[in-house]
Amino acid sequence: MVDVLVVNDDGIFSPGLRAAVRAVKGLGRVTAVAPATQKSGVGRSISLLTPVSIAELEIEGVKAYAVDGTPVDAVLVGIYGVLKRKPEIIVSGINLGENLSCEATTSGTVGAAMEGASQGVASIAVSLHSESRFNEVQPEVELEHCAEVLRRCAEYVLDRGLPEGVDVLNINVPEEPVRGARITRLARRMYTTRLQERRDPRGRRYFWIDGEPVRDAEPGTDVHAVRVERCISISPLSLDLTFHPGIEQLDDLTRALEKG
Amino acid sequence: MVDVLVVNDDGIFSPGLRAAVRAVKGLGRVTAVAPATQKSGVGRSISLLTPVSIAELEIEGVKAYAVDGTPVDAVLVGIYGVLKRKPEIIVSGINLGENLSCEATTSGTVGAAMEGASQGVASIAVSLHSESRFNEVQPEVELEHCAEVLRRCAEYVLDRGLPEGVDVLNINVPEEPVRGARITRLARRMYTTRLQERRDPRGRRYFWIDGEPVRDAEPGTDVHAVRVERCISISPLSLDLTFHPGIEQLDDLTRALEKG
Repeated sequence: MVDVLVVNDDGIFSPGLRAAVRAVKGLGRVTAVAPATQKSGVGRSISLLTPVSIAELEIEGVKAYAVDGTPVDAVLVGIYGVLKRKPEIIVSGINLGENLSCEATTSGTVGAAMEGASQGVASIAVSLHSESRFNEVQPEVELEHCAEVLRRCAEYVLDRGLPEGVDVLNINVPEEPVRGARITRLARRMYTTRLQERRDPRGRRYFWIDGEPVRDAEPGTDVHAVRVERCISISPLSLDLTFHPGIEQLDDLTRALEKG
Repeated sequence: MVDVLVVNDDGIFSPGLRAAVRAVKGLGRVTAVAPATQKSGVGRSISLLTPVSIAELEIEGVKAYAVDGTPVDAVLVGIYGVLKRKPEIIVSGINLGENLSCEATTSGTVGAAMEGASQGVASIAVSLHSESRFNEVQPEVELEHCAEVLRRCAEYVLDRGLPEGVDVLNINVPEEPVRGARITRLARRMYTTRLQERRDPRGRRYFWIDGEPVRDAEPGTDVHAVRVERCISISPLSLDLTFHPGIEQLDDLTRALEKG
């Protein structure tokens, strides 16, 4: 029997998690493990300084566990504490909001999939892009086409595995109508950065980190596929950040370090 | 005047931050911005759901700011809230403990440097490897050789810039005696994963995430350089996780998505 572990970063009560569970329920024995609360933006955070408690519940008819920790904690508790074996696939999502570009390493959804891959499990991250902010929409309504994409991608991965060298598929689905699918590279950025400075009631300054979507993406990138072409974007990711050509180019730095 | 922004993940009061400030003080106008408390393992986390407050202090004679947030928040507050311009270099560290392998994306030290690079600033992460755990040592004593490595690397980067395609230098320095320097690629893992299950006073189970150092690393990797050769390891990193050969290999997946 195939084990499918479903995780997310929006938390155990997200409609995106429920949609993901429904999407993969026919593919094997499904277990959901997710943070107890919203953990957007925590990337591949791992709880090293605090222990991680869990609570059992049921979601869409499958066993589910709320973890007092990060998406990566959910992956590790799922594999080593709950299943006590490696699942055949880890599905992270469906995230309510896109996770595009090299900024995807700030995403808990993608971070969880990266941890899954690091544990040797084929892992996919699935996010729903929306032009509106999600607190202004009812995401349940719009998740089914995204769940269908997730189901097909999970079937593909269970059937064939990921190509050699690919650790994670980072999938972003635009709102309907969807105009096709693209295999993409990551754009450099998906948001600009802006700091909003405010004053608390005692006059001390504090900041909100904010930004605007980047629109002028290059063709071939995930940002271009989703925001310009309105296509599903699937980016093959590697865990290896090494820029290999740089190894030779930095040879003189070793000499600078070794002298004197 | 060159601006040098020093950040870390161990927190504003870490002796590693003080050593980093001392190391780069001669290179330009130095500003330190760091989390108010220990933030190891938070990777490239960014505070999107909560605002970030700051407090001003002084460290080693330079202006310093404690940020109620993550290492990435420190970078963004440093650039947009404090300096109000991009520094010529960002130095993240000195971290008390190594940040090796593809697991480096779980490191707040490396996460801060990645954010710096994403903001267009040449960024270096510096970590001190120790065979002992740091709560058992007095790191002040052992940081000076690491600070000297940091100073030389920062000088190199300020002088020549990073090679095209390199976003971050991830530098790990072993304890003395150091036997040379290597430009390396990231190993796959630096730790194994282990979950320790315990029971709280009310009988509910919880977990500590733990692991053992990986020792059988391949030559050419950062883990091999530091743990086996006892050399300084410098890995050139890219922010782009795309596994480019995978783009063609996944072409049939788009067909699976587009049909019916």
